[in-house]
Amino acid sequence: MASSVSASTLAGRLGDGWRGRDPVLAPALAHELRAQVIDGRLPVRARLPSERSLAAALGVSRGTVGRAYDELTRTGFLRRTQGAGSWTALPDGARPGVGLRVTLPGGVAPDVVNLSVAAPPAPEGLAAAAARALDELPRHTAGMGYGAAGIDDLRQAVAERFSARGLPTRPGQVMVCGGAQHGLHLVLGLLCKPGDRVLVDDPGYPRTLTAIAAARCRPVAVPLTPDGWDADAWEHAIRHTRPALAVTVADFHNPTGRTMPAETRARIVAACARAGTTLVIDETNAELRLDGPPLPPPVATFERGPTVITVGSLSKASWGGLRVGWVRASGRAVGELAAVRADQDAASPILEQLVATQLVRDLDAALPARHRLLAQRRDALIGAVARHAPHWTARMPHGGLCTWWDLGRAVSSSLCEAALGAGIHVTPGSAFTAGTTGERFLRLPYVLAEDELEDAVARLAALEEGLVPIDAARPSRRAALDAV
Amino acid sequence: MASSVSASTLAGRLGDGWRGRDPVLAPALAHELRAQVIDGRLPVRARLPSERSLAAALGVSRGTVGRAYDELTRTGFLRRTQGAGSWTALPDGARPGVGLRVTLPGGVAPDVVNLSVAAPPAPEGLAAAAARALDELPRHTAGMGYGAAGIDDLRQAVAERFSARGLPTRPGQVMVCGGAQHGLHLVLGLLCKPGDRVLVDDPGYPRTLTAIAAARCRPVAVPLTPDGWDADAWEHAIRHTRPALAVTVADFHNPTGRTMPAETRARIVAACARAGTTLVIDETNAELRLDGPPLPPPVATFERGPTVITVGSLSKASWGGLRVGWVRASGRAVGELAAVRADQDAASPILEQLVATQLVRDLDAALPARHRLLAQRRDALIGAVARHAPHWTARMPHGGLCTWWDLGRAVSSSLCEAALGAGIHVTPGSAFTAGTTGERFLRLPYVLAEDELEDAVARLAALEEGLVPIDAARPSRRAALDAV
Repeated sequence: MASSVSASTLAGRLGDGWRGRDPVLAPALAHELRAQVIDGRLPVRARLPSERSLAAALGVSRGTVGRAYDELTRTGFLRRTQGAGSWTALPDGARPGVGLRVTLPGGVAPDVVNLSVAAPPAPEGLAAAAARALDELPRHTAGMGYGAAGIDDLRQAVAERFSARGLPTRPGQVMVCGGAQHGLHLVLGLLCKPGDRVLVDDPGYPRTLTAIAAARCRPVAVPLTPDGWDADAWEHAIRHTRPALAVTVADFHNPTGRTMPAETRARIVAACARAGTTLVIDETNAELRLDGPPLPPPVATFERGPTVITVGSLSKASWGGLRVGWVRASGRAVGELAAVRADQDAASPILEQLVATQLVRDLDAALPARHRLLAQRRDALIGAVARHAPHWTARMPHGGLCTWWDLGRAVSSSLCEAALGAGIHVTPGSAFTAGTTGERFLRLPYVLAEDELEDAVARLAALEEGLVPIDAARPSRRAALDAV
Repeated sequence: MASSVSASTLAGRLGDGWRGRDPVLAPALAHELRAQVIDGRLPVRARLPSERSLAAALGVSRGTVGRAYDELTRTGFLRRTQGAGSWTALPDGARPGVGLRVTLPGGVAPDVVNLSVAAPPAPEGLAAAAARALDELPRHTAGMGYGAAGIDDLRQAVAERFSARGLPTRPGQVMVCGGAQHGLHLVLGLLCKPGDRVLVDDPGYPRTLTAIAAARCRPVAVPLTPDGWDADAWEHAIRHTRPALAVTVADFHNPTGRTMPAETRARIVAACARAGTTLVIDETNAELRLDGPPLPPPVATFERGPTVITVGSLSKASWGGLRVGWVRASGRAVGELAAVRADQDAASPILEQLVATQLVRDLDAALPARHRLLAQRRDALIGAVARHAPHWTARMPHGGLCTWWDLGRAVSSSLCEAALGAGIHVTPGSAFTAGTTGERFLRLPYVLAEDELEDAVARLAALEEGLVPIDAARPSRRAALDAV
């Protein structure tokens, strides 16, 4: 993406720590800029300020910045184009996310501790819901069994759930599909053509990035700041790149766990509406508030037009093995999405939809137990990190399934590789980013049992100790995210 | 596609009937050629023989052919390019398949007679299989429920079924998916990029064409002759267009009901292997042999390499409401397809896969009842046509779910439109073709009850009587397909 960093922003991000490293300022500045590109504090392919303006912002001579830029250019971390300025880069044409290794669901051997999938086991009520669904099945078996938009009962139940959450919804606005990810795949198929831009968070959900790549679209990555979404940066990116789609997880963001404030929701909805960009809101985690303040109203409540498409799922609130989710959109868009789906996999299975109908209707009764379980596991995970790796920092998530750790050093890929050898499957930070290297971050979900989490964290911390960071820089004194 | 018709082939197709129409031969020849383009006996965008060679083949003067070609050029049914010859066309840039109107599954009102979907109701054993599956469910609910390639038991059961049919298969060669159509969608996603060519039958299954269009690939349509697949034409098209994929239904072809002979299987597999074309064989109907000779060996038995990918499904052998099918390919391709799927809709539902496992294991016991039911309905449909529309002709299918009627006149779209107004939903011939107009053909599935079929055919025949064919030509004396 075509991002750029202003002199004052960059000076702020650099802080003063770099000055103490070397009595000669230029190599120290080059070292710090290089470290920030590698560990993900500065995006790759970002336009840096001019030598003159950065020198002014830092209070150093223009020659110091010039020599630092020269050094970075020589080592491949900067590209300079006559008249177009200086751009961050990776040496030898390396691309961010080269370390991407997303676990194939099901591809994990049974004896491996799987920290790569943020999906909880099935709830207790599943068997009872399935038994009731079985009683309903004969009402449907005389028919052909197809219905690309889903069975009426489930569309009704999902519409009622949206309405109860403050987003009035008719059943005709709901299309049943195979999960939130499937919803995004269908929306990409309907609204995007190869080469279109799709705005994403950096960091964001890895399969959002792979779905965009599969649709041959181009991700435009907008960095999350330590405080969450940067509404200015979103507005800027939407205005300047006019993406066909923008995708985010506003409630308990994956991987950071952040929740988007109401005023940011209003601003990005308005920016998308102005640009003709469809905003896809992934509500997979919206039913998983564990504690903390109440959630702001759903993002789709901030618009009156067709700007926002909401995708949701039972995969986290109930069980991923169901493969039932939904898309909420205008009635017209639902019809068009159903036509897209009819050519792909026709429809969702009837029996599974009947089970899902029961589960959606009973969600209020089932969720408290799930919330208690996840809160216990979250607290166990955070406690384990505090005991075994107290130098890792993360912001406490109030919902969802994930913690996002700043390891303090660019060791994420090395750590995940070492972990795999030790029987722990965990996804490196690089998988979550389209614009930075992500090498300083690690996502740890809290879906496994407490003792498994304790053991896994202890082993990860021991492995991390012996690793050499890929930038070989000393740990930064500034954490990109607040401490727990 | 770039098809061409030789002088001797065209002379054979024209026969002698056209000569009696008009004492002046040129307008009669032009009329017959125009009628054959409109009603689908001649493809659109086919290269016609030179005036000289057609004149020789027909035993008429070159001037007669020249005047006929001039007349067709003037009325838009022929395009002539200096040095590149004469090509069939439609006036005003009309494209074949403009009448395409594929029923959206589930989009049919309850009081409409639905002859647009060839899908039978659920078998009697479904409830029992579902109850047994429910007992198995607890073995799976402790896990996360994802597994893009499917659960082991189902992969094993499908592999055993393939092996029993004479195609030795390991479970690792089987990927579970949401039906044969879904399998094709995944293969297109893995192997094709926008602009790639995909060879298809003309006529062929409509959703094959729409899936190819959705993948932004280009169909290369090879006409089926009245005798079935034309191996020479397949070899020619593969050699000259080097398609990335070729797709066909070799066992009880949809819509024609034909079965590909063993020697044709061997030839097209070899042609695909030589060109590096992956051959996708849709076996949706392979378990639905009602009578007639035994089926030849599965197409994939004719190769030793990775040329053939087989897709199959329980949708017709059991029930479409299950949404369970499979892809059989090399173990490596299965892994790659699973990765494609993981980014789209993750996996198939566990419960549905457990039901499907039971149904696949019990298929031998369940199929005879299904075969008896479908044979009765087929015979009822054919009897109804013989009573109410004896001028329609079709070849008797020995399996599958469809009959393909030659109406004798180019009225298919008009008939389907009139039928819709009368509460009967049926798909026009144009939906089944990428290279011709299909206007003379109508697909009638035999999945509804006998009395519904009798009533629907009587009403369709009455509607057809009053229609004016779009070519306003007299009915041809030659049927493109043999009589029943």
